[in-house]
Amino acid sequence: MKKISILGSTGSIGKQTLEVIDNLTGQFEVLALTANQNVELLTTQVKKYKPQYAVLMNEEAATELKYNLKDLQTEVLVGKSGLIRAATLTEIDLVVNAVVGAIGVKPTLEAIKAGKDIGLANKETLVTAGEIVMREAAQHEVSILPIDSEHNAIFQALQGEEKEQVSRIILTASGGPFRQASAKDLTEVTVKQALDHPNWDMGGKITIDSATLMNKGLEVIEAKWLFDLDFEQIDVVVHPQSIVHSLVEYQDHSMLAELGLPDMKVPIQYVLTYPERKKNQLESLELAQVGKLTFEEPRRDLFPCLDFAYQAGKIGGTMPAVLNAANEVAVAQFLNNQLKFIQIPQIIEKVMEAHQAIITPTLDDILAADSWAREQARKEGGRN
Amino acid sequence: MKKISILGSTGSIGKQTLEVIDNLTGQFEVLALTANQNVELLTTQVKKYKPQYAVLMNEEAATELKYNLKDLQTEVLVGKSGLIRAATLTEIDLVVNAVVGAIGVKPTLEAIKAGKDIGLANKETLVTAGEIVMREAAQHEVSILPIDSEHNAIFQALQGEEKEQVSRIILTASGGPFRQASAKDLTEVTVKQALDHPNWDMGGKITIDSATLMNKGLEVIEAKWLFDLDFEQIDVVVHPQSIVHSLVEYQDHSMLAELGLPDMKVPIQYVLTYPERKKNQLESLELAQVGKLTFEEPRRDLFPCLDFAYQAGKIGGTMPAVLNAANEVAVAQFLNNQLKFIQIPQIIEKVMEAHQAIITPTLDDILAADSWAREQARKEGGRN
Repeated sequence: MKKISILGSTGSIGKQTLEVIDNLTGQFEVLALTANQNVELLTTQVKKYKPQYAVLMNEEAATELKYNLKDLQTEVLVGKSGLIRAATLTEIDLVVNAVVGAIGVKPTLEAIKAGKDIGLANKETLVTAGEIVMREAAQHEVSILPIDSEHNAIFQALQGEEKEQVSRIILTASGGPFRQASAKDLTEVTVKQALDHPNWDMGGKITIDSATLMNKGLEVIEAKWLFDLDFEQIDVVVHPQSIVHSLVEYQDHSMLAELGLPDMKVPIQYVLTYPERKKNQLESLELAQVGKLTFEEPRRDLFPCLDFAYQAGKIGGTMPAVLNAANEVAVAQFLNNQLKFIQIPQIIEKVMEAHQAIITPTLDDILAADSWAREQARKEGGRN
Repeated sequence: MKKISILGSTGSIGKQTLEVIDNLTGQFEVLALTANQNVELLTTQVKKYKPQYAVLMNEEAATELKYNLKDLQTEVLVGKSGLIRAATLTEIDLVVNAVVGAIGVKPTLEAIKAGKDIGLANKETLVTAGEIVMREAAQHEVSILPIDSEHNAIFQALQGEEKEQVSRIILTASGGPFRQASAKDLTEVTVKQALDHPNWDMGGKITIDSATLMNKGLEVIEAKWLFDLDFEQIDVVVHPQSIVHSLVEYQDHSMLAELGLPDMKVPIQYVLTYPERKKNQLESLELAQVGKLTFEEPRRDLFPCLDFAYQAGKIGGTMPAVLNAANEVAVAQFLNNQLKFIQIPQIIEKVMEAHQAIITPTLDDILAADSWAREQARKEGGRN
C-alpha cells in the first residue's frame, strides 16, 4: 500500500487524484489532505479518507474544520507549517503537490529533503525555483514525477531512453479559446469567454493562462528544469484537439509521443502508480473516431506571454519568479474585471522590465522577488 | 565496429541500409552482401564495401560477378547455401535480412541458431514461421529488431515498458492509392496506378500489397509473433500521411507512438545502432508544417485481404504461409497483367479455402505448404 499526502486536495487536480485513488481500490492510503479554505469539501474528504492530518491555510476555516471533525482522530493543522508537516510525514512515500501558486514551492523542497517522491502539479515549484529543486532532488535521490499532461507525456516518452540522445521536445498547446481570434477580438474578451477552455476541465487561473499562452510559457520553463534541456531544445506547437500530449524528438529523428483523450486522470494515475501502469476504466482513444489532428505555429505576436516566458527563462535567476508572480496578479485582476485581457501581458512586461534579476538566487531571494513582483503588478494594474 | 551482413543488398531496404552505414562513418564493417541476380549493382557494392563474401542466387549471375571481382579478395558464393553462409559467419554481430520472399526464412533461422541478432525486413520470416522463429530467438537469446516502420515504431514505443501492461497496438496504414476508390473504380485499376504509392518509396511487390491492404494484414501476423500478442490486441487504422508510424496503448489508457517523416532510413538506423540512437542528417518532422494528420477505419469490405490475414493468423499453423504464397503469386500475375487487381483477393481466398492447415508444423511443413499454395495460385490465376 503506497502512502500518500495530497497538498491541495480540494482543487481540480486534488479531486481527480482522489478519484484515481478510489478507482485503484486498496492500493493507496491517504495520510494527509490540505486545502486553502474550502472547509466543506475538505470535511467531506476527511470523513471519507480518514487521513492522519488535515490542513487549511485559513485560520478561521481551520477552526470550523476542527468542529466538523470533532468525532474523528484526524488532527487539524493550519497555515504553511501545517502544509510542510503534511509534506514531510515520516510514513509517506509520495507527496502530490497540487497546490496553486508560489505557496507550493516550500513544501516541495521540504518533502524532497525528507526523501519523498513528488507528484508535481504545482507549476510554481519549477518555474520559480527549478534549479534549486532539481539540485535537491538529485542530491536526495527522489523522483519528480510531473502530473501536467504535457510533461507527463514527455516523461513517458523518455522511459527507457538516454537523455543525451534527445534533440528537442515539443510541447503541444491547445491554443485556448482565442486561437483564431484577431487582434481586435482580443481587446473585447470577457472573463466568461476566457474561462471557456475547449478541451480541459481545469481551474480558473490555469484556464486564463491557457488563453494567454502563459500556461505554455510556464511549462517551457518547467520542462527546462525537469528534463535538463536548453531553451533552444524546447518547441511549442498548437494542437487544438489536445490528443497528442507532447513529443520528444531524438537525435536519430525518431519522435516519440504520448497520446490519449484529454483526461487528467491518466497522467495522475501514471504518477501514482509509476513505474507501473495499472488497468483502469477510462475511455480509449480511437483515432478513427477523432478523425483529424491539426497542428499550427503559436501566434507569438498576439500572445506575447509565450515569448516573455522564454525571455524570463533565459535570463534565469529570479526572473521566472517575477514573470510568474506578475502573471498571477494580472490574471486575478482580470478575473475580478479590474483589467482587460490584453492588459495581462502588458503588466507582466512592465514588471519584468522593472526587475533587476539576481542570477544565482537563494530560495529567499526568489520569494522576495515574487513578493516584489506582486506588489509591482498590483501597482501597474491599479493604474488602469 | 559492428560487423554486419546484408541479405538482399540490392533491394530497396538493402540499398538504404548501405546509405545509413555510409552516413555513420567508421561504425560498421560489412562482411557479406547478397542479392538475387542484380550483378551490376552488387559488383559496385562489393567494390565499395569489400566484404568477405558476395552471394547471388542465380548461378549465371554468380559467374559474371566472379569475373567482375577477379581482382578483389571477396569470395563469391551461389544459391541458398551461400545465403546461409552469409547469415552465419562467425564474426558477424547483426544480420540484416532484407530478402524479398519466402527464401528469407531459412537464413533468419540459421542466423538465430548461430546467435546473431537480426535486423528483420523480410516479412515472410515471421508471417510464415513466426512461432518457430520467435521460439528459437528466445532460446538463443538473440534480438529480432524490426525494420518495417510500423513494427519499428512499436518496438520503440515499448522500450522501458512492461509487455504485460500493453492493452493493444495500433498499426497505421497509408491506405494506399485506392483508399477512396469505389468498388467500381477497383475493377479498372491498372498496374501503373497500383504502383503509385502516396508516401513510401518501396519495391513493386510491397507497393501492390499496400494497395490491397495485404501488406497491413501481413504486418498484423508479424506483430502477433514479434510482440507476443493476441490478434484481438492488434488494430489497424488508416492514416494517409504516414507520419504516425504506429502506436501502443497501455492498460492505463496512455498511448505511445513513434512519429517522423516517412523515411525508411530512420528505422533502419535504429536497428543498426540499437540500443543507441545516433545523430544523423535526416529531415526533422515539423508538425506545424504538416498541419493535419487524419485517421479513418480501413474499408474491410473493399479490401478483404486484411481480414484474410486475420483469419489465416487465427487459424495459424501453415495457413499464414499459404496466404502469403498465394498473395505473392497473385501479385506477380497482376504485375504481369495476367490478373485484374480485384482478382488478387479472389485467388487468395480460393487457395486458403482449399488448404487443410497443419496446426503445429515443422519448417518443412511450412515450406511445403508454401510450394503447394504457389502451385494452386498459379492454377487459379491461369483460369482467368
